[in-house]
Amino acid sequence: MTGGVSDLPVAVPLRQADLSGLPAQVRIHEVGPRDGLQAESVIVPVAVKAELVRRLLGAGLAKIELTSFVPPSWIPQLADAEELMASLADLPLTARPGLVTNQRGLDRAVAAGCTEVAVVVSATDTFARRNLNNTVRGAIDLATAVARDALAAGLRVRGYVSMCFGDPWEGPVPVSQVTAAVGALAEAGCYEVSLGDTIGVATPGQVLGMLDALGEAAVTVDRLALHLHDTYGQALANVVAGLMAGVSVFDSSVGGLGGCPYAQSASGNLATEELVWLLEGLGIETGVDLVTVAEVGDWMATEVGRPGGSRVGRALRTRS
Amino acid sequence: MTGGVSDLPVAVPLRQADLSGLPAQVRIHEVGPRDGLQAESVIVPVAVKAELVRRLLGAGLAKIELTSFVPPSWIPQLADAEELMASLADLPLTARPGLVTNQRGLDRAVAAGCTEVAVVVSATDTFARRNLNNTVRGAIDLATAVARDALAAGLRVRGYVSMCFGDPWEGPVPVSQVTAAVGALAEAGCYEVSLGDTIGVATPGQVLGMLDALGEAAVTVDRLALHLHDTYGQALANVVAGLMAGVSVFDSSVGGLGGCPYAQSASGNLATEELVWLLEGLGIETGVDLVTVAEVGDWMATEVGRPGGSRVGRALRTRS
Repeated sequence: MTGGVSDLPVAVPLRQADLSGLPAQVRIHEVGPRDGLQAESVIVPVAVKAELVRRLLGAGLAKIELTSFVPPSWIPQLADAEELMASLADLPLTARPGLVTNQRGLDRAVAAGCTEVAVVVSATDTFARRNLNNTVRGAIDLATAVARDALAAGLRVRGYVSMCFGDPWEGPVPVSQVTAAVGALAEAGCYEVSLGDTIGVATPGQVLGMLDALGEAAVTVDRLALHLHDTYGQALANVVAGLMAGVSVFDSSVGGLGGCPYAQSASGNLATEELVWLLEGLGIETGVDLVTVAEVGDWMATEVGRPGGSRVGRALRTRS
Repeated sequence: MTGGVSDLPVAVPLRQADLSGLPAQVRIHEVGPRDGLQAESVIVPVAVKAELVRRLLGAGLAKIELTSFVPPSWIPQLADAEELMASLADLPLTARPGLVTNQRGLDRAVAAGCTEVAVVVSATDTFARRNLNNTVRGAIDLATAVARDALAAGLRVRGYVSMCFGDPWEGPVPVSQVTAAVGALAEAGCYEVSLGDTIGVATPGQVLGMLDALGEAAVTVDRLALHLHDTYGQALANVVAGLMAGVSVFDSSVGGLGGCPYAQSASGNLATEELVWLLEGLGIETGVDLVTVAEVGDWMATEVGRPGGSRVGRALRTRS
């Protein structure tokens, strides 16, 4: 009775499911300082933000989205963009990405020393109107123009498409709206386009279907990232689907900081620690030190005045 | 620019990953009243427990593990097992499962009207000693004897194997220890054996590997269930792996109630609502009404005096 049950009928053989074809390495695009902090209710002092970036870099996160260059009245949490960039001048960051929504933002980002900008469009009209004060078409035209100027200025450009898998006002989002927006950003010269599940409603079949449709629209998976929110607890299940389809870049936020301030039911980004735990378990290299990043998440949760943000952080704290 | 980007090079074609072979139906084994409440720090009045079971049944959960018949000094939270069973006598439950750890427990369960019992073994010696006050071998022998008597009394028997994917004291758990324990329970006549990730450390490759190894040990997937904890946020990612391998029974706890009181870093079971959200999104039938079960989870969280337990519950509450 030490190895098995030889006399049981083998009625339903296990399918040969395996995960052997997954990417060997994943790049984590850390969005805590930008997407995280913009959605927290407290305004974090610039010195704490700089310390956050330093600690994230120390944990092995090589790609950190630092801030947004949007009108301070829109997002007061990030009104200190220039000051933060200045205070990071001596930090050996290999990239200095900032989010911009128009030419004015791009000018500010360039002046502040950004080496990369992110541009944003929406897959749905309602969110484009509420978040970007624009139509889908107008937002794509604007992002395309900003991308052109950024590339001309020698910056790299990353694209975000919001509301790819569901919209709180419009419900399900037709795949064609997403492929059109992603295709436009890729054509505009974005080296990578991140598909946003802004309200966290997606499930793995939807993710695979979207990636298939994008492949048919000739947007190759090496130019795609997934930006998943954990609103309904589905983010890591969707990461598995993304990995199965060959996605090797995932956005996450240390400690699960933030969310989307414009989406009614958003409750936070995928926590970097939980993503790292999954990838380490799958034998996928990230360059991130799990324990260190969990400590950063715990520390930052304290700074914004809420309980530790990630399940990994809580579990590691209570482990010793 | 409405459909794609025809002039981009197609350097890395999408792999044809899909989830088309998943089970069409999943049975959720609700463990909130037992595994959930035994780990909460408050002792819930028996009337509230009975109401919980009634509401879970009303939400479409057909299989609900009701209580444990263990010495009250071990788990005071479930000391009212007989009283609870009596108060559920008129409820049209198709099964009345209770957990037992020895002959005395089985006698109590039979007397109280259980139609099914769960027996428990551990894949590791440390947990067997700490949780079951036994060795691995002794626990298997005891569970086998209890199962034989339960079957003779006309009950169905379900098996649990704890610590299948990691042990807080022993670390990684050799696969052979798990296949031996599962095989023994299957041989003892358990109609189903549930693989417990008691401390929530598993990742999907590990789950697939374990299911493969069990297949080789001739324990067919139709006799296996997964009992996942969400301690590190990995539970749903592991559900995806289980589904890929053909598993169609998953244990979960409404509102993410509870955990394992004996495991240092346990922080709760997989929430039923999050499981249902995933399965609905994948087009897999569960018979469970999502909104109703989320309301049950929210209500029960209030009863045990903590914030709403599941992300789905919180998101749905703030949605309207």
